Amino acid sequence: MEEFDIIIIGAGPAGISAAIYSKSRGKKTLLLEKNSIGGTIGNVSTVTHYAGIVTGETGEEFAQRLERQVMDPGVDVRIERVVSADLGKKDKVVTTENNSYLAKAVIIASGCIRRHLGIPGEKKFGNLNAAKNHIEFAGRDAYVVGGSDGAVKEALFLSGHANHVFIIHFEEKLGAISEFKEKIGRTSNITPLLNRRLIRINGKDCLESLELENMVTGEKEEIICPGAGLFIYAGGIPDSSIYDVEKDGGYIKTTEKMETSEKGVFSAGDVNLKQIRQIATAVSDGAIAAINAVEYVDSIK
Amino acid sequence: MEEFDIIIIGAGPAGISAAIYSKSRGKKTLLLEKNSIGGTIGNVSTVTHYAGIVTGETGEEFAQRLERQVMDPGVDVRIERVVSADLGKKDKVVTTENNSYLAKAVIIASGCIRRHLGIPGEKKFGNLNAAKNHIEFAGRDAYVVGGSDGAVKEALFLSGHANHVFIIHFEEKLGAISEFKEKIGRTSNITPLLNRRLIRINGKDCLESLELENMVTGEKEEIICPGAGLFIYAGGIPDSSIYDVEKDGGYIKTTEKMETSEKGVFSAGDVNLKQIRQIATAVSDGAIAAINAVEYVDSIK
Repeated sequence: MEEFDIIIIGAGPAGISAAIYSKSRGKKTLLLEKNSIGGTIGNVSTVTHYAGIVTGETGEEFAQRLERQVMDPGVDVRIERVVSADLGKKDKVVTTENNSYLAKAVIIASGCIRRHLGIPGEKKFGNLNAAKNHIEFAGRDAYVVGGSDGAVKEALFLSGHANHVFIIHFEEKLGAISEFKEKIGRTSNITPLLNRRLIRINGKDCLESLELENMVTGEKEEIICPGAGLFIYAGGIPDSSIYDVEKDGGYIKTTEKMETSEKGVFSAGDVNLKQIRQIATAVSDGAIAAINAVEYVDSIK
Repeated sequence: MEEFDIIIIGAGPAGISAAIYSKSRGKKTLLLEKNSIGGTIGNVSTVTHYAGIVTGETGEEFAQRLERQVMDPGVDVRIERVVSADLGKKDKVVTTENNSYLAKAVIIASGCIRRHLGIPGEKKFGNLNAAKNHIEFAGRDAYVVGGSDGAVKEALFLSGHANHVFIIHFEEKLGAISEFKEKIGRTSNITPLLNRRLIRINGKDCLESLELENMVTGEKEEIICPGAGLFIYAGGIPDSSIYDVEKDGGYIKTTEKMETSEKGVFSAGDVNLKQIRQIATAVSDGAIAAINAVEYVDSIK
């Protein structure tokens, strides 16, 4: 079995930051990623509020910058999905679909996976992504589901491409920050459809209609929207089920040093139980987790 | 008195991050800085390990990027040194050399100031900075004092300009990370002078000699080095003396939400009592402090 000092699971901002720090401290470091380097951030239209972004860069460009930064010092990055992890002993075993690896310390930075609405039609029409698919819907209508910062930011982005953008949100107000809400107020081709929950998506080859439930009156309505784009941003759930460490609601509990309940196992980023989920906090978590994982590896020598 | 929702003291990475978040949440935000935007980071040769840096950019370029990012959304940034702060009441008063301001919440992000060695000759010859002054010493010898990451990184940078670089450090090993130590091993014109403390700097118009004390033998030695450059990196001390909040060794104590012992007063970055002082953790602190300061301001309306 191939051996490493530190294995980091997940190459989003937290995992990349951890890998940069681990490598800079001279540790043999493996960074495992199931999809693409950059994680979720590579799929957003723009990156906002993180100190140090380049004005106007897309999520994809930011992810590419992170990728270069982690490849430059020679971190070993492999695109392999982790399927199990044996973390309870001194030697940790991380198993992917392809291989098993041995590590002295493990940093879980697996982030979140998309929350599904669990409604009819979602499998067929629920997989679009504004950053990747906006061109296909240029000049057509777009429906964004969700009221969070992430959803509203993508609605704003889509408004520059689509004919009209509708934001379907089940609460009476959007939950986004005032910067985004003000921008919506100034954007004539965005209309929030509040107090409404999407309950069914209809269509054969393309989207045909959306069925909504009014959260106040309980009434149902059907929006006929042939060929429109549907973009669902219903949040995420922590991708932590395979890790046998202490959790709360699926989120991994850590100390300030990013230590989990298992010795030599650290965790960082959106998968952690914490107040604020931002790139800034993920990158910080990653740095802290790596510095402490390095210290742990040195202590067991 | 001019009134703000949130006043942030210090425009280093922590303060800039806080200002970006505060402004994005619609709060009337004032960012006060005593020297230059970017803080200490603007004076380092290169920025390392922070996820999202642009390959090869200098500290100054990174600081300029942060400056643009905080100016773009219209944060009110003023170069004024804060001389006192009355933080105990609901309405906070922050006084600079020029003005007094009223705020509902204050975020202290004042960072650290240079630690002085307190030795003869330091006032006259101890103020050089590798990033700013390396050109003057091209082809001459350079003496770097300090063994930390910051000191060793600047020694590596100077080795590309100076004839020979000597690192004076009082411990038997450099305290820097292995990436930097390995680079030193591969750099033929850097020589560490270990177990030695600088005790006196001599010179009239230019540096003439350095007096060192051997920490093992107690012996004194004098290095004759006319016209050489001396670059002192002896660490920092928290710039917190004017703030009446709970501290430990000068560092401000906070909760996970970056709350200090005073209601409505938050603190972020290097001035905080914490384990890891990196740009990553400062930027994260700033985001967390601002989001909680915004929540606090909304709660007292």
